[in-house]
Formats: sequence, structure tokens, C-alpha cells
Amino acid sequence: MSEANKGGLEGVVVADISTSFIDGNEGILIYAGYRIEDLAENNVLFEEVCHLMWHNRLPNRQELEDLRYQIASGAHLPTSVINMMKAQPKGANPMAVLRTAVSALSLYDTDAENLTDREVAFKKAIRLTGQIATITAAWDRIRKGKEPIAPRVDLTLAQNFVWMMTGEQPDQTAADAINAYLVLLAEHGMNASTFCTRVVTATGSDMHSAVVGGIATLKGPSHGGANAEAMKMFLEIGSADNVEAWFKREVKEHGRRIMGIGHRVYKAVDPRAAILKKHAKDLAESSGNAKWYDLAAKLEEVALADDYFKERKLYPNVDYYSAIVLYTLNLDVDMFTPLFAMARIAGWTAHIIAQMGGRLIRPRANYVGPKDRKWVPIDQR
Amino acid sequence: MSEANKGGLEGVVVADISTSFIDGNEGILIYAGYRIEDLAENNVLFEEVCHLMWHNRLPNRQELEDLRYQIASGAHLPTSVINMMKAQPKGANPMAVLRTAVSALSLYDTDAENLTDREVAFKKAIRLTGQIATITAAWDRIRKGKEPIAPRVDLTLAQNFVWMMTGEQPDQTAADAINAYLVLLAEHGMNASTFCTRVVTATGSDMHSAVVGGIATLKGPSHGGANAEAMKMFLEIGSADNVEAWFKREVKEHGRRIMGIGHRVYKAVDPRAAILKKHAKDLAESSGNAKWYDLAAKLEEVALADDYFKERKLYPNVDYYSAIVLYTLNLDVDMFTPLFAMARIAGWTAHIIAQMGGRLIRPRANYVGPKDRKWVPIDQR
Repeated sequence: MSEANKGGLEGVVVADISTSFIDGNEGILIYAGYRIEDLAENNVLFEEVCHLMWHNRLPNRQELEDLRYQIASGAHLPTSVINMMKAQPKGANPMAVLRTAVSALSLYDTDAENLTDREVAFKKAIRLTGQIATITAAWDRIRKGKEPIAPRVDLTLAQNFVWMMTGEQPDQTAADAINAYLVLLAEHGMNASTFCTRVVTATGSDMHSAVVGGIATLKGPSHGGANAEAMKMFLEIGSADNVEAWFKREVKEHGRRIMGIGHRVYKAVDPRAAILKKHAKDLAESSGNAKWYDLAAKLEEVALADDYFKERKLYPNVDYYSAIVLYTLNLDVDMFTPLFAMARIAGWTAHIIAQMGGRLIRPRANYVGPKDRKWVPIDQR
Repeated sequence: MSEANKGGLEGVVVADISTSFIDGNEGILIYAGYRIEDLAENNVLFEEVCHLMWHNRLPNRQELEDLRYQIASGAHLPTSVINMMKAQPKGANPMAVLRTAVSALSLYDTDAENLTDREVAFKKAIRLTGQIATITAAWDRIRKGKEPIAPRVDLTLAQNFVWMMTGEQPDQTAADAINAYLVLLAEHGMNASTFCTRVVTATGSDMHSAVVGGIATLKGPSHGGANAEAMKMFLEIGSADNVEAWFKREVKEHGRRIMGIGHRVYKAVDPRAAILKKHAKDLAESSGNAKWYDLAAKLEEVALADDYFKERKLYPNVDYYSAIVLYTLNLDVDMFTPLFAMARIAGWTAHIIAQMGGRLIRPRANYVGPKDRKWVPIDQR
């Protein structure tokens, strides 16, 4: 690698933003001026956070109700997209289905190819925010042989998601946990998927393309896929009783990474993880199923007592306890990452709109190959 | 903007590569050691360039025949994907259709979720290279109410594309022009769409996701969409006789950009443009339709005589004369960018495979908002 190679773009600043601020050393996350703990403790609605991301201020009651209604009423899917999903293999990866369905949505959105109008872009952001939740819930039903359920216009997005998953009056504890998750995952600076939405948008491409790029990027196990990887690891460990032996064998002897511990930016406790840990504990108690919370808490304790983790400042990140929250809510493990997309659409679309009309993002490569090969006819090769 | 803000990532090196070298000041483009002029003059096949990109050397005759056959035989589409395309609105943007169809392909590719095996990745690259051509041709037929035509195993990709577009024994002049276009557009360093495929891949995501991200990015009018934008401009000008008046009015008086002139990297003649200009001229002569070539050549002459263009070193780029080549081949203007994707898949997949297992690409943002807003209950906002 050449000296100037910024392969991971560590520390390279690519945009001025006002959506979120991260102090990784202090474990601070701020959404447009508000500490994430402040928003979480006051049970802010995901729709309020969308308003905060898109308009840089919290809505008043009328604005919130308007936005809630617009998201709910824009969340329905064209029949053609539902039919497309019904024709897809039931074993398909839910992120691949979401990526395909969001891409297909553009074919039915009359504003899809409007590349420049910001007011239109906000409307598309509202629709996509609802539609991603609808696709996610619809796919979980379709693959289980059930009929998808349409969104209701009288519910919040979190309530609607529970409604569309179950077809029953949404349980408020579940909706509150989903809402808290959506709030905490809504935005996080220049993470890889958000950066991807900006790379796409900077060519003048459309919002659906950018969001499809975001989903494609989020899908990776080193990004949004990490919550599912963390849960697979918890399932492999099996119970809190196995944690110490597993840690000794897999981590200390075989050098395995603990999924959900360590973060590119945070060198302190990820404040989202701390909040999600509380939710995971509450859910464990209210559901009577503390098995996975206990396991995760034990593994955290064991890891944090280890010198290797201490020296490198490796703490649980947002994926670690969100896996426990989502699993305790009875979501299938492969649904975790679509849930992440349901949240991050708020940040993605805010970044996309900010990037519209901006400069092409085109870095350089360092060529390390030969420069003077001479053409040789094929029969002489 | 903060001082350190690298919004466009100009000059920031993100990878060591051996696929291509660009000297923008000298107008030099090298593919893995070979000057692009050398490859073009020797009528290299697109399949040879794929081999060069994927294995860093030109194939011998047996290797070329093997790869040609693998691409041709892997180019068929699952019936489900064809049926999906048939159900889509006929007026849909072909790049949006391509993005959706490639995303859907992953649902039927049993290797899609294999994220780590390089040998499997090469096989997927081969399949996607053929399938993108098949989707592109199939969509042009489907939207015109015609039945799509399956690829033949005895043809090169360029021949197959002409076959799948027309259903007739491919005209060799047309196939040669398509092949030349594919060769010239196959790879170009760390352009925006290629960079996007690396951002996606660096999270550990799958090849289909990365290629979908590439298509989403290429679609933008400041990137792959520029060839269509250039043609729209030529159509607006209408004839070579109108060039001087149009230039004076639109460019000099109204400050309009000339689509297809100027490039982020080239500050000299884009060598691909020079080669494509020759192809455009030959096609104009052989087809008896020199109208668009004459117009483009005239506009180039007028622009290059202008001080503004001279001082800024603004020359025709690859999109400028490729628009003329593709239009003279009777392709619809909105098919130009899918043709670009048909070529660039070679470079994308080479970069994706090189990036596999690499470091997460996660830059930073500079927060410019407030940090100390205090929560206010909704009824006090």
C-alpha cells in the first residue's frame, strides 16, 4: 500500500452535516443538538426524529401529526410490488428482497426521476420511510405463507410495523421497543451506508437509487448485518453458563472476534448500546425470557474484564444489545438488518437531500501494475 | 465548509489497483499494462478485456474461448426475472429496470450469499457480465411489446447483444462497434460507480449488492447518464448548421455546460474519446448517416477554439462520441447508460473481488450544528 492510501478513509472528512455529532472517545451521540439519552428518556417518537433529521428541529404537535399521517398513508405498496414479492423464493435473504422491492418501487413512483426538486425529495423520503417498514413486514408474512397486511393511517410507524407483522391490535410494549430501536438507529454520521447514499446522489442519481445503495451497503456483516451476526453468536453460545468457556476457547485461543463488540468510531461505551441494554433488560423481565439478556450481559462482563478488550477500548456497540431486543420481540434473526434499514432511512434521506446538487464524489486509485506491456497476438500468448 | 473537507475526495487515494492507470494531464489510459489505443487498434474482444481485468493478463486462445462460452452460457435469465420485467411499466427508466433486475437475480443465484470465496466470486462476475447484456436487450424488446430473445452460446457478448436486440443474425459492423464501445468503457480507475461497488463490498456485502450499487451510481447524469444527456443536447441542437448560434446563445450567453465536454480527471483529450470519434466517423460513413457525427465534430471544433474551454482544458470525454456511436447504431437514447453498465461490469467486478475482505470504508463528517439543545415537551414547541 502506498503511504497516501486512505483505504478505509479513516478521519477523512467528506461533508459538513447538521444531523448528528459523534464523540467516539467520550461516547457521545447528538441528533441535531439533542443528546441521544435526552431523546430516549423522553420517549420521542421515530416520526419526531424524522422531522428533526429532515428539518433540523423537533415538530410541534400539529407538525408531528401531519408527518405521522403522511408516513402512514404513504406506506402502502403498489399491488405490482406485492405481487412481485409473492413470486420470489420464500428462502430469499430479506435484505436482498428489500433491496429489490425498493428498487422496484421507483418504477411506480411518478416522482422517481425528478432528480433536482427538494420539495419532491422530501415527499419521496416520507413515502420510502413508510414503505420500507411495509416491505419488511410484508416479506416476513409472505415467506411464511401468510397474506401481507396493509398499513393503517391511524398508527405510528412502530405501531404499524407491529400491526403489519401480526395483524393484531399492536401491543404497546412491543411498539415502544420498536420505536426506541428506530430512534436509536435513525442516524449515525458518515457511516458506510449513509456514505454510499451520498456517493450515489453526488452523480445526480435519484433517491430510490441512493436508498437501494444504502440497503446494499447496510446488508454487509461488518455494518448493518452485524446485529444478525451478534445474535447468531449468542445462539451458538446457547446460555450464560457457557459464556466463560466459550470466551476462553473461541476468543482467547482461536482469536475469534466478538460480534457487536468494538466500533470504528466509538472508543468508549456506545451510548445507544447503553440505552438498548436497559430496553433489553426491561423486555427480558416483562416477557419472562431473560435467557438472552443474561447471556449478553455475562459476555460483556467477561470481555470487559479482559486486558485485550480493555487496552483496545472495545465495548459493546449498538448491534450487541439491539440483537437481544429484537430477538426477545420474537423477530427472526434475518429480519434484524431490515429493521436497521427501517430506522436508518431517516438519516439516509436527510443526507441524500443535503447532498443533492453537490460535487461528484470521485477519489483516486494508486496504480501498482506495469505500464508498458506490448500487445501480443492471441496465438503467441 | 471546513478546511479539511474533502467533499469530492479529489486526489484522495483509496486503493492500490492493477486494473487501470490514468494520466489525466497526458491523456493516457492503460488497462493492466496495455495502452488503450493498442487494445483498440488490435480489435481486442471485450471478453479478452474481462480476462485482463479479472486475471491481470490477456488470455490465450483456449482461455478466451472458455471465457466467451462461460459468459454466453451464463447470460440467460431465470424465467421469474423475465416475468418480473414483463410485469413492469413499459415507460420505466431502463437503468431503474436494470437495477431492479440485477437485484432480483441474486434471489435465484445459489451463490449470491457466498460472501467470501473468490473462486465463486469469479463465477458470479462471469454470470453478471452476460446477464446485464441480456437484461438490457430484453427490456428494450419487452417495452416495445416484443418477446425477449435468449442469448446464444456460440456468440461473443457484443454479437449476442445485437442478436438479442434484433433476433437476426448479428450484423458484424454493429457487433464490432458495440465490442469497441464495451472495451473502451470496461474500466476507469476509481470512478464514482466503481468506488460505490467498493464501499458496498467493504462492509462484507455480496456481489449482487455491490453491482446494484454500481448501477445506482452510474445512473446519475454526472456519471454514466452523461452519454444520454450529451445525445439529448445534440438532438436539441438539431444539425451542424445550428452549432455556432447554439454555442453563442446557450453556452456563452446563458452559461450552459456542454454535456460530454470536460472530465474530473482528464485535462487533455480523453483517449477513449479520440478512438470513439474514429468509430463514429466510420459508422457515419458506412451507414450514410453523418448528420450527428458532423454536428458533434463541429461543436467540438467551436468549443475548442473558445478561450474559456482552452484555458480550462475542457475536451470531449468518453460520453461525447459514444453518444454518436450508439445513436448511429439506432439505440434509443435511454439505452445508452445500460450499455455503459454492460461494459463497466468488467471493471466493477474486478474491483469488487479485489476489495473482498478489505477494510470498511467509513469516512467522517464535520458537524456544524448546535450541540446543546435541551429537550422541550411537544406542547411547548
